[in-house]
Amino acid sequence: MKRPLILVTNDDGISAPGIRNLIRIMNDFGEVIVVAPDAPQSGMGHAITIDAALRCDKVVIDKGPQKEYSCSGTPVDCVKLAVNQLLDRKPALCVSGINHGSNSSINVIYSGTMSAAVEAALEGIPSIGFSLLDYSHNADFTEAEIYIRKVTQLVLENEMERGVCLNVNIPKLKEVESIKGMKVCRQANANWEEEFEQRVDPKGRNYYWLKGKFVNYDKGMDTDEWALANHYISVVPIQFDVTAYPAISALTKMLSDE
Amino acid sequence: MKRPLILVTNDDGISAPGIRNLIRIMNDFGEVIVVAPDAPQSGMGHAITIDAALRCDKVVIDKGPQKEYSCSGTPVDCVKLAVNQLLDRKPALCVSGINHGSNSSINVIYSGTMSAAVEAALEGIPSIGFSLLDYSHNADFTEAEIYIRKVTQLVLENEMERGVCLNVNIPKLKEVESIKGMKVCRQANANWEEEFEQRVDPKGRNYYWLKGKFVNYDKGMDTDEWALANHYISVVPIQFDVTAYPAISALTKMLSDE
Repeated sequence: MKRPLILVTNDDGISAPGIRNLIRIMNDFGEVIVVAPDAPQSGMGHAITIDAALRCDKVVIDKGPQKEYSCSGTPVDCVKLAVNQLLDRKPALCVSGINHGSNSSINVIYSGTMSAAVEAALEGIPSIGFSLLDYSHNADFTEAEIYIRKVTQLVLENEMERGVCLNVNIPKLKEVESIKGMKVCRQANANWEEEFEQRVDPKGRNYYWLKGKFVNYDKGMDTDEWALANHYISVVPIQFDVTAYPAISALTKMLSDE
Repeated sequence: MKRPLILVTNDDGISAPGIRNLIRIMNDFGEVIVVAPDAPQSGMGHAITIDAALRCDKVVIDKGPQKEYSCSGTPVDCVKLAVNQLLDRKPALCVSGINHGSNSSINVIYSGTMSAAVEAALEGIPSIGFSLLDYSHNADFTEAEIYIRKVTQLVLENEMERGVCLNVNIPKLKEVESIKGMKVCRQANANWEEEFEQRVDPKGRNYYWLKGKFVNYDKGMDTDEWALANHYISVVPIQFDVTAYPAISALTKMLSDE
Protein backbone atom coordinates (compact mmCIF):
# COMPACT_ATOMS: atom_id res chain seq x y z
CA MET A 1 0.00 0.00 0.00
CA LYS A 2 1.19 3.47 -0.85
CA ARG A 3 2.00 5.57 2.20
CA PRO A 4 -0.43 8.46 2.73
CA LEU A 5 0.59 11.83 1.35
CA ILE A 6 0.82 14.42 4.15
CA LEU A 7 1.03 18.17 3.55
CA VAL A 8 2.75 20.15 6.32
CA THR A 9 2.59 23.91 6.74
CA ASN A 10 2.60 26.58 9.49
CA ASP A 11 2.63 30.33 10.07
CA ASP A 12 5.85 30.73 12.04
CA GLY A 13 7.93 30.08 8.92
CA ILE A 14 9.61 26.99 7.48
CA SER A 15 12.61 27.09 9.82
CA ALA A 16 10.65 27.39 13.10
CA PRO A 17 11.31 24.58 15.61
CA GLY A 18 7.57 23.83 15.76
CA ILE A 19 7.31 22.82 12.11
CA ARG A 20 10.67 21.02 12.14
CA ASN A 21 9.34 18.83 14.97
CA LEU A 22 6.04 18.28 13.15
CA ILE A 23 7.86 17.23 9.95
CA ARG A 24 9.98 14.75 11.90
CA ILE A 25 6.84 13.22 13.45
CA MET A 26 4.91 13.11 10.14
CA ASN A 27 7.77 11.30 8.38
CA ASP A 28 6.72 8.26 10.48
CA PHE A 29 3.17 8.41 9.09
CA GLY A 30 3.58 8.95 5.38
CA GLU A 31 5.18 10.69 2.47
CA VAL A 32 5.66 14.28 3.58
CA ILE A 33 5.54 17.45 1.47
CA VAL A 34 6.21 20.72 3.24
CA VAL A 35 4.98 23.98 1.74
CA ALA A 36 5.50 26.70 4.31
CA PRO A 37 6.11 30.46 4.48
CA ASP A 38 9.69 31.66 4.00
CA ALA A 39 9.21 34.11 6.92
CA PRO A 40 6.95 34.46 9.98
CA GLN A 41 3.28 35.03 9.07
CA SER A 42 1.66 35.01 12.51
CA GLY A 43 -1.64 36.83 12.76
CA MET A 44 -2.21 36.64 9.01
CA GLY A 45 -5.63 35.00 9.44
CA HIS A 46 -7.14 33.82 6.16
CA ALA A 47 -5.19 36.34 4.08
CA ILE A 48 -4.33 35.45 0.49
CA THR A 49 -2.07 37.14 -2.03
CA ILE A 50 -4.19 38.60 -4.80
CA ASP A 51 -2.20 41.42 -6.35
CA ALA A 52 1.32 40.04 -6.27
CA ALA A 53 3.07 37.01 -7.69
CA LEU A 54 4.27 34.26 -5.38
CA ARG A 55 7.68 32.71 -5.11
CA CYS A 56 7.87 29.06 -4.17
CA ASP A 57 11.23 27.31 -4.28
CA LYS A 58 12.38 23.82 -3.44
CA VAL A 59 14.64 23.84 -0.40
CA VAL A 60 16.60 21.36 1.70
CA ILE A 61 16.69 22.21 5.39
CA ASP A 62 17.57 18.94 7.08
CA LYS A 63 18.36 15.35 6.19
CA GLY A 64 14.82 13.98 6.48
CA PRO A 65 13.01 12.20 3.61
CA GLN A 66 10.45 15.01 3.16
CA LYS A 67 10.25 17.29 0.12
CA GLU A 68 10.14 20.98 1.03
CA TYR A 69 9.07 24.21 -0.62
CA SER A 70 9.61 27.67 0.84
CA CYS A 71 6.92 30.12 -0.22
CA SER A 72 6.75 33.92 -0.16
CA GLY A 73 3.01 33.93 0.54
CA THR A 74 0.69 33.50 3.49
CA PRO A 75 -0.14 30.13 5.10
CA VAL A 76 -3.36 29.95 3.04
CA ASP A 77 -1.38 30.68 -0.14
CA CYS A 78 0.92 27.76 0.78
CA VAL A 79 -2.03 25.35 0.94
CA LYS A 80 -3.51 26.64 -2.33
CA LEU A 81 -0.15 26.37 -4.09
CA ALA A 82 0.48 22.89 -2.71
CA VAL A 83 -2.92 21.48 -3.65
CA ASN A 84 -3.34 23.17 -7.02
CA GLN A 85 0.19 23.37 -8.35
CA LEU A 86 2.81 21.31 -6.55
CA LEU A 87 1.18 18.01 -5.56
CA ASP A 88 0.42 15.26 -8.06
CA ARG A 89 -2.40 13.86 -5.90
CA LYS A 90 -4.70 14.94 -3.13
CA PRO A 91 -3.12 14.64 0.33
CA ALA A 92 -4.67 12.23 2.85
CA LEU A 93 -3.96 14.78 5.57
CA CYS A 94 -2.81 18.36 6.08
CA VAL A 95 -1.17 19.34 9.36
CA SER A 96 -0.31 22.90 10.33
CA GLY A 97 2.00 23.98 13.13
CA ILE A 98 3.23 23.19 15.67
CA ASN A 99 2.38 26.80 16.40
CA HIS A 100 4.51 28.61 18.96
CA GLY A 101 1.65 30.00 21.07
CA SER A 102 -2.06 29.47 21.63
CA ASN A 103 -4.68 29.30 18.91
CA SER A 104 -7.51 28.54 21.31
CA SER A 105 -10.84 30.39 21.47
CA ILE A 106 -10.94 33.64 19.43
CA ASN A 107 -7.28 33.27 18.40
CA VAL A 108 -8.49 30.81 15.77
CA ILE A 109 -9.70 33.61 13.50
CA TYR A 110 -6.43 35.58 13.63
CA SER A 111 -4.21 32.54 13.23
CA GLY A 112 -2.40 31.78 9.99
CA THR A 113 -1.75 28.27 11.29
CA MET A 114 -5.44 27.55 11.75
CA SER A 115 -6.46 29.35 8.55
CA ALA A 116 -4.15 27.01 6.61
CA ALA A 117 -5.93 24.05 8.21
CA VAL A 118 -9.33 25.58 7.38
CA GLU A 119 -8.23 26.11 3.77
CA ALA A 120 -7.24 22.44 3.50
CA ALA A 121 -10.66 21.46 4.90
CA LEU A 122 -12.25 23.68 2.23
CA GLU A 123 -10.37 21.61 -0.35
CA GLY A 124 -11.83 18.45 1.19
CA ILE A 125 -8.61 17.40 2.92
CA PRO A 126 -8.76 16.16 6.54
CA SER A 127 -6.67 18.65 8.48
CA ILE A 128 -5.36 19.49 11.92
CA GLY A 129 -3.76 22.58 13.37
CA PHE A 130 -1.43 21.98 16.34
CA SER A 131 -0.43 24.70 18.78
CA LEU A 132 1.62 24.66 21.97
CA LEU A 133 0.90 27.35 24.58
CA ASP A 134 4.51 28.44 24.65
CA TYR A 135 5.62 31.41 22.55
CA SER A 136 9.32 30.82 23.05
CA HIS A 137 11.55 29.72 20.19
CA ASN A 138 13.00 26.99 22.42
CA ALA A 139 9.65 25.55 23.48
CA ASP A 140 9.74 21.91 24.58
CA PHE A 141 7.61 19.76 22.25
CA THR A 142 8.40 16.43 23.96
CA GLU A 143 5.14 15.79 25.81
CA ALA A 144 3.08 17.29 22.97
CA GLU A 145 4.54 14.71 20.59
CA ILE A 146 2.74 11.74 22.17
CA TYR A 147 -0.64 13.41 21.62
CA ILE A 148 0.19 14.71 18.16
CA ARG A 149 0.92 11.11 17.18
CA LYS A 150 -2.37 9.91 18.70
CA VAL A 151 -4.52 12.53 16.96
CA THR A 152 -2.75 12.04 13.63
CA GLN A 153 -3.25 8.27 13.79
CA LEU A 154 -6.95 8.67 14.63
CA VAL A 155 -7.59 11.15 11.82
CA LEU A 156 -5.78 8.95 9.29
CA GLU A 157 -7.78 5.89 10.42
CA ASN A 158 -11.22 7.46 10.77
CA GLU A 159 -13.31 9.40 8.35
CA MET A 160 -13.51 13.05 9.38
CA GLU A 161 -16.64 14.99 8.55
CA ARG A 162 -16.00 16.81 5.26
CA GLY A 163 -15.20 20.49 5.70
CA VAL A 164 -14.30 20.15 9.38
CA CYS A 165 -10.75 20.57 10.67
CA LEU A 166 -9.36 20.19 14.17
CA ASN A 167 -7.92 22.95 16.32
CA VAL A 168 -5.62 21.15 18.78
CA ASN A 169 -4.04 23.22 21.56
CA ILE A 170 -1.55 21.77 23.99
CA PRO A 171 -1.08 23.32 27.46
CA LYS A 172 2.31 24.41 28.72
CA LEU A 173 2.89 22.76 32.06
CA LYS A 174 5.45 22.97 34.80
CA GLU A 175 7.94 20.13 35.01
CA VAL A 176 6.16 18.42 37.91
CA GLU A 177 2.79 18.39 36.11
CA SER A 178 1.63 16.31 33.19
CA ILE A 179 -1.12 16.40 30.56
CA LYS A 180 -4.34 14.73 31.74
CA GLY A 181 -5.61 13.74 28.30
CA MET A 182 -7.59 15.22 25.43
CA LYS A 183 -10.99 16.96 25.56
CA VAL A 184 -13.28 17.77 22.64
CA CYS A 185 -14.49 21.32 23.27
CA ARG A 186 -16.24 24.32 21.84
CA GLN A 187 -14.49 27.64 21.18
CA ALA A 188 -14.64 29.73 24.38
CA ASN A 189 -16.23 33.16 24.24
CA ALA A 190 -13.03 35.07 24.94
CA ASN A 191 -11.44 38.11 23.39
CA TRP A 192 -8.46 40.45 23.44
CA GLU A 193 -8.92 43.71 25.27
CA GLU A 194 -6.65 45.81 23.19
CA GLU A 195 -4.61 48.80 24.06
CA PHE A 196 -2.26 50.66 21.78
CA GLU A 197 0.95 52.27 22.86
CA GLN A 198 1.37 55.56 21.09
CA ARG A 199 4.93 56.70 20.39
CA VAL A 200 6.44 59.61 18.52
CA ASP A 201 9.16 59.03 15.94
CA PRO A 202 12.25 61.29 15.66
CA LYS A 203 10.41 63.38 13.05
CA GLY A 204 7.52 64.05 15.43
CA ARG A 205 5.01 61.72 13.76
CA ASN A 206 2.89 59.26 15.79
CA TYR A 207 3.03 55.50 15.50
CA TYR A 208 1.25 52.75 17.43
CA TRP A 209 2.10 49.35 18.87
CA LEU A 210 -0.66 46.83 19.44
CA LYS A 211 -0.74 45.46 23.00
CA GLY A 212 -3.52 43.23 24.20
CA LYS A 213 -4.74 41.42 27.25
CA PHE A 214 -6.57 38.13 26.73
CA VAL A 215 -9.85 37.93 28.63
CA ASN A 216 -12.04 34.85 28.97
CA TYR A 217 -15.71 35.81 29.49
CA ASP A 218 -16.85 32.20 29.31
CA LYS A 219 -17.49 30.22 32.51
CA GLY A 220 -18.42 27.02 30.63
CA MET A 221 -16.59 23.79 31.44
CA ASP A 222 -16.99 22.58 27.85
CA THR A 223 -14.66 25.21 26.36
CA ASP A 224 -11.10 25.00 25.08
CA GLU A 225 -9.99 27.58 27.67
CA TRP A 226 -11.36 25.45 30.50
CA ALA A 227 -9.64 22.33 29.15
CA LEU A 228 -6.27 24.07 28.80
CA ALA A 229 -6.48 25.69 32.25
CA ASN A 230 -7.19 22.21 33.66
CA HIS A 231 -4.20 20.56 31.98
CA TYR A 232 -6.09 18.94 29.11
CA ILE A 233 -5.32 19.19 25.41
CA SER A 234 -8.27 20.96 23.75
CA VAL A 235 -9.62 19.64 20.46
CA VAL A 236 -12.17 21.92 18.77
CA PRO A 237 -13.79 20.96 15.46
CA ILE A 238 -13.80 24.03 13.20
CA GLN A 239 -16.01 24.84 10.21
CA PHE A 240 -15.90 27.49 7.49
CA ASP A 241 -19.64 28.20 7.38
CA VAL A 242 -19.88 31.35 9.50
CA THR A 243 -23.63 31.87 9.07
CA ALA A 244 -25.21 32.80 12.40
CA TYR A 245 -28.18 30.43 11.95
CA PRO A 246 -29.89 31.35 15.25
CA ALA A 247 -30.07 34.99 14.08
CA ILE A 248 -31.86 34.25 10.78
CA SER A 249 -35.47 34.34 11.97
CA ALA A 250 -35.24 37.60 13.96
CA LEU A 251 -33.36 39.20 11.08
CA THR A 252 -35.96 38.05 8.55
CA LYS A 253 -38.65 39.63 10.70
CA MET A 254 -36.65 42.85 11.07
CA LEU A 255 -36.15 43.20 7.30
CA SER A 256 -39.74 42.34 6.39
CA ASP A 257 -41.29 44.75 8.90
CA GLU A 258 -39.99 47.77 7.08
CA MET B 1 -30.28 63.72 21.37
CA LYS B 2 -26.70 63.13 20.33
CA ARG B 3 -26.33 61.76 16.80
CA PRO B 4 -25.06 58.17 16.72
CA LEU B 5 -21.34 57.68 16.25
CA ILE B 6 -20.65 55.65 13.09
CA LEU B 7 -17.30 54.06 12.30
CA VAL B 8 -16.59 53.55 8.59
CA THR B 9 -13.86 51.33 7.16
CA ASN B 10 -13.15 49.11 4.14
CA ASP B 11 -10.45 47.00 2.49
CA ASP B 12 -10.11 48.75 -0.87
CA GLY B 13 -8.38 51.72 0.74
CA ILE B 14 -9.57 55.10 1.98
CA SER B 15 -9.76 56.70 -1.46
CA ALA B 16 -11.82 53.96 -3.17
CA PRO B 17 -15.15 55.17 -4.63
CA GLY B 18 -16.99 52.53 -2.59
CA ILE B 19 -16.00 53.99 0.78
CA ARG B 20 -16.40 57.58 -0.44
CA ASN B 21 -20.03 56.76 -1.31
CA LEU B 22 -20.56 54.99 2.02
CA ILE B 23 -19.17 57.98 3.95
CA ARG B 24 -21.49 60.34 2.07
CA ILE B 25 -24.50 58.15 2.94
CA MET B 26 -23.48 57.70 6.60
CA ASN B 27 -23.13 61.46 7.10
CA ASP B 28 -26.96 61.55 6.93
CA PHE B 29 -27.25 59.07 9.80
CA GLY B 30 -24.77 60.28 12.39
CA GLU B 31 -21.37 61.57 13.35
CA VAL B 32 -18.93 59.74 11.09
CA ILE B 33 -15.38 58.68 11.86
CA VAL B 34 -13.45 56.97 9.07
CA VAL B 35 -10.47 54.77 9.90
CA ALA B 36 -9.45 52.97 6.73
CA PRO B 37 -6.36 51.46 5.11
CA ASP B 38 -4.04 53.84 3.26
CA ALA B 39 -3.73 51.27 0.43
CA PRO B 40 -5.75 48.33 -0.95
CA GLN B 41 -5.99 45.41 1.49
CA SER B 42 -8.28 43.05 -0.41
CA GLY B 43 -8.00 39.39 0.52
CA MET B 44 -6.40 40.21 3.88
CA GLY B 45 -9.01 38.21 5.80
CA HIS B 46 -8.74 38.63 9.56
CA ALA B 47 -5.04 39.54 9.43
CA ILE B 48 -3.62 41.81 12.14
CA THR B 49 -0.26 43.54 12.45
CA ILE B 50 1.66 41.95 15.30
CA ASP B 51 5.34 42.56 14.65
CA ALA B 52 5.30 46.07 13.20
CA ALA B 53 4.18 49.47 14.36
CA LEU B 54 1.17 51.12 12.74
CA ARG B 55 0.87 54.55 11.26
CA CYS B 56 -2.47 56.29 11.55
CA ASP B 57 -2.76 59.91 10.44
CA LYS B 58 -5.61 62.37 10.26
CA VAL B 59 -6.42 63.21 6.67
CA VAL B 60 -8.88 65.40 4.75
CA ILE B 61 -10.06 63.85 1.50
CA ASP B 62 -13.27 65.71 0.70
CA LYS B 63 -15.42 68.49 2.12
CA GLY B 64 -17.80 66.28 4.15
CA PRO B 65 -18.28 66.68 7.92
CA GLN B 66 -16.63 63.32 8.72
CA LYS B 67 -13.30 62.93 10.55
CA GLU B 68 -10.87 60.65 8.74
CA TYR B 69 -7.79 58.64 9.59
CA SER B 70 -5.61 56.83 7.07
CA CYS B 71 -3.95 53.75 8.56
CA SER B 72 -1.00 51.63 7.41
CA GLY B 73 -2.55 48.42 8.77
CA THR B 74 -5.14 45.87 7.75
CA PRO B 75 -8.91 46.47 7.94
CA VAL B 76 -9.01 44.64 11.30
CA ASP B 77 -6.16 46.84 12.59
CA CYS B 78 -8.25 49.88 11.58
CA VAL B 79 -11.18 48.73 13.71
CA LYS B 80 -8.93 47.91 16.69
CA LEU B 81 -7.18 51.27 16.46
CA ALA B 82 -10.47 53.13 16.10
CA VAL B 83 -12.18 51.46 19.04
CA ASN B 84 -9.23 51.30 21.41
CA GLN B 85 -7.26 54.43 20.58
CA LEU B 86 -9.01 57.02 18.44
CA LEU B 87 -12.66 57.12 19.53
CA ASP B 88 -13.81 58.71 22.76
CA ARG B 89 -16.93 56.53 22.95
CA LYS B 90 -18.23 53.26 21.58
CA PRO B 91 -19.76 53.60 18.10
CA ALA B 92 -23.45 52.82 17.66
CA LEU B 93 -22.61 51.21 14.31
CA CYS B 94 -19.65 50.12 12.21
CA VAL B 95 -20.04 49.88 8.43
CA SER B 96 -17.44 48.42 6.11
CA GLY B 97 -17.28 48.83 2.32
CA ILE B 98 -18.83 49.43 -0.08
CA ASN B 99 -16.60 46.66 -1.35
CA HIS B 100 -15.80 46.60 -5.04
CA GLY B 101 -16.69 42.96 -5.68
CA SER B 102 -18.56 40.09 -4.06
CA ASN B 103 -18.14 38.95 -0.47
CA SER B 104 -20.87 36.33 -0.70
CA SER B 105 -20.52 32.66 0.33
CA ILE B 106 -16.92 31.56 0.98
CA ASN B 107 -15.51 34.99 0.04
CA VAL B 108 -16.51 36.11 3.52
CA ILE B 109 -13.48 34.41 5.09
CA TYR B 110 -10.95 35.97 2.68
CA SER B 111 -12.48 39.42 2.81
CA GLY B 112 -10.83 42.28 4.67
CA THR B 113 -14.11 44.21 4.41
CA MET B 114 -16.07 41.48 6.17
CA SER B 115 -13.30 40.76 8.70
CA ALA B 116 -13.44 44.41 9.77
CA ALA B 117 -17.20 44.01 10.33
CA VAL B 118 -16.61 40.77 12.28
CA GLU B 119 -13.99 42.52 14.42
CA ALA B 120 -16.47 45.28 15.27
CA ALA B 121 -19.04 42.62 16.22
CA LEU B 122 -16.41 41.05 18.48
CA GLU B 123 -16.13 44.42 20.21
CA GLY B 124 -19.89 44.41 20.73
CA ILE B 125 -20.60 46.98 18.01
CA PRO B 126 -23.51 46.37 15.59
CA SER B 127 -21.87 46.14 12.19
CA ILE B 128 -22.58 45.67 8.51
CA GLY B 129 -20.34 44.89 5.55
CA PHE B 130 -21.62 46.13 2.18
CA SER B 131 -20.40 44.75 -1.15
CA LEU B 132 -21.42 45.41 -4.73
CA LEU B 133 -20.85 42.63 -7.26
CA ASP B 134 -18.87 44.91 -9.54
CA TYR B 135 -15.08 44.91 -9.36
CA SER B 136 -14.62 48.02 -11.47
CA HIS B 137 -13.33 51.24 -9.99
CA ASN B 138 -16.18 53.11 -11.67
CA ALA B 139 -18.95 50.87 -10.34
CA ASP B 140 -22.38 52.48 -10.13
CA PHE B 141 -23.57 52.62 -6.51
CA THR B 142 -26.86 54.44 -7.25
CA GLU B 143 -29.36 51.59 -6.84
CA ALA B 144 -27.34 50.08 -3.97
CA GLU B 145 -27.72 53.31 -2.03
CA ILE B 146 -31.48 52.92 -1.43
CA TYR B 147 -30.92 49.54 0.21
CA ILE B 148 -27.84 50.61 2.14
CA ARG B 149 -29.98 53.36 3.68
CA LYS B 150 -32.75 50.88 4.55
CA VAL B 151 -30.45 48.36 6.22
CA THR B 152 -28.57 51.08 8.10
CA GLN B 153 -31.81 52.58 9.42
CA LEU B 154 -33.07 49.16 10.53
CA VAL B 155 -29.86 48.24 12.33
CA LEU B 156 -29.75 51.61 14.10
CA GLU B 157 -33.40 51.25 15.20
CA ASN B 158 -33.40 47.59 16.19
CA GLU B 159 -31.27 45.68 18.61
CA MET B 160 -28.95 43.30 16.74
CA GLU B 161 -27.96 40.07 18.42
CA ARG B 162 -24.62 40.67 20.14
CA GLY B 163 -21.65 39.26 18.22
CA VAL B 164 -23.54 39.01 14.94
CA CYS B 165 -22.76 41.21 11.94
CA LEU B 166 -24.43 41.42 8.54
CA ASN B 167 -22.88 40.46 5.23
CA VAL B 168 -24.85 42.46 2.65
CA ASN B 169 -24.14 41.77 -1.04
CA ILE B 170 -25.76 43.75 -3.82
CA PRO B 171 -26.15 42.23 -7.29
CA LYS B 172 -24.86 43.98 -10.40
CA LEU B 173 -27.71 44.24 -12.84
CA LYS B 174 -28.13 45.32 -16.42
CA GLU B 175 -29.74 48.71 -16.98
CA VAL B 176 -33.16 47.26 -17.82
CA GLU B 177 -33.31 45.14 -14.64
CA SER B 178 -33.85 46.21 -11.07
CA ILE B 179 -33.28 44.80 -7.59
CA LYS B 180 -36.23 42.73 -6.36
CA GLY B 181 -35.66 43.32 -2.66
CA MET B 182 -33.63 41.87 0.20
CA LYS B 183 -33.39 38.23 1.31
CA VAL B 184 -31.97 36.90 4.56
CA CYS B 185 -29.82 33.90 3.58
CA ARG B 186 -27.25 31.40 4.70
CA GLN B 187 -23.72 31.29 3.28
CA ALA B 188 -23.74 29.09 0.17
CA ASN B 189 -21.44 26.09 0.02
CA ALA B 190 -19.27 27.44 -2.78
CA ASN B 191 -15.55 27.62 -3.32
CA TRP B 192 -12.77 28.76 -5.62
CA GLU B 193 -11.27 26.13 -7.86
CA GLU B 194 -7.81 27.50 -8.02
CA GLU B 195 -5.24 27.33 -10.70
CA PHE B 196 -1.83 28.96 -10.68
CA GLU B 197 -0.12 30.35 -13.70
CA GLN B 198 3.56 29.54 -13.52
CA ARG B 199 5.96 32.00 -15.16
CA VAL B 200 9.71 32.29 -15.35
CA ASP B 201 11.44 35.56 -14.51
CA PRO B 202 14.36 36.96 -16.59
CA LYS B 203 16.78 35.21 -14.21
CA GLY B 204 15.18 31.81 -14.81
CA ARG B 205 13.38 31.53 -11.48
CA ASN B 206 9.72 30.49 -11.24
CA TYR B 207 6.93 32.62 -9.91
CA TYR B 208 3.18 32.03 -9.67
CA TRP B 209 -0.01 34.03 -10.19
CA LEU B 210 -3.18 32.94 -8.44
CA LYS B 211 -6.13 32.48 -10.80
CA GLY B 212 -9.41 31.03 -9.62
CA LYS B 213 -12.79 30.04 -10.87
CA PHE B 214 -15.72 30.44 -8.49
CA VAL B 215 -17.89 27.33 -8.26
CA ASN B 216 -21.21 27.08 -6.43
CA TYR B 217 -21.87 23.50 -5.25
CA ASP B 218 -25.02 24.50 -3.41
CA LYS B 219 -28.45 24.00 -4.99
CA GLY B 220 -30.33 25.50 -2.02
CA MET B 221 -32.73 28.39 -2.61
CA ASP B 222 -31.97 29.82 0.84
CA THR B 223 -28.38 30.79 0.01
CA ASP B 224 -26.77 34.12 -0.76
CA GLU B 225 -25.68 32.87 -4.19
CA TRP B 226 -29.27 31.99 -5.07
CA ALA B 227 -30.52 35.40 -3.93
CA LEU B 228 -27.89 37.29 -5.92
CA ALA B 229 -28.45 35.21 -9.07
CA ASN B 230 -32.16 36.01 -8.75
CA HIS B 231 -31.67 39.78 -8.44
CA TYR B 232 -32.09 40.00 -4.68
CA ILE B 233 -29.75 41.63 -2.20
CA SER B 234 -28.39 38.90 0.10
CA VAL B 235 -28.19 39.53 3.84
CA VAL B 236 -26.31 36.84 5.79
CA PRO B 237 -25.87 37.09 9.57
CA ILE B 238 -22.27 36.21 10.42
CA GLN B 239 -20.77 34.95 13.68
CA PHE B 240 -17.23 34.52 14.98
CA ASP B 241 -17.77 31.22 16.78
CA VAL B 242 -16.44 28.74 14.21
CA THR B 243 -16.98 25.60 16.34
CA ALA B 244 -18.47 22.83 14.20
CA TYR B 245 -21.05 21.82 16.84
CA PRO B 246 -22.56 18.95 14.81
CA ALA B 247 -19.12 17.29 14.70
CA ILE B 248 -18.56 17.28 18.46
CA SER B 249 -20.24 13.99 19.36
CA ALA B 250 -18.60 11.86 16.64
CA LEU B 251 -15.25 13.43 17.45
CA THR B 252 -15.68 12.75 21.18
CA LYS B 253 -16.37 9.11 20.35
CA MET B 254 -13.37 8.92 18.03
CA LEU B 255 -10.99 10.32 20.65
CA SER B 256 -12.34 8.19 23.50
CA ASP B 257 -12.19 4.93 21.55
CA GLU B 258 -8.44 4.97 21.40
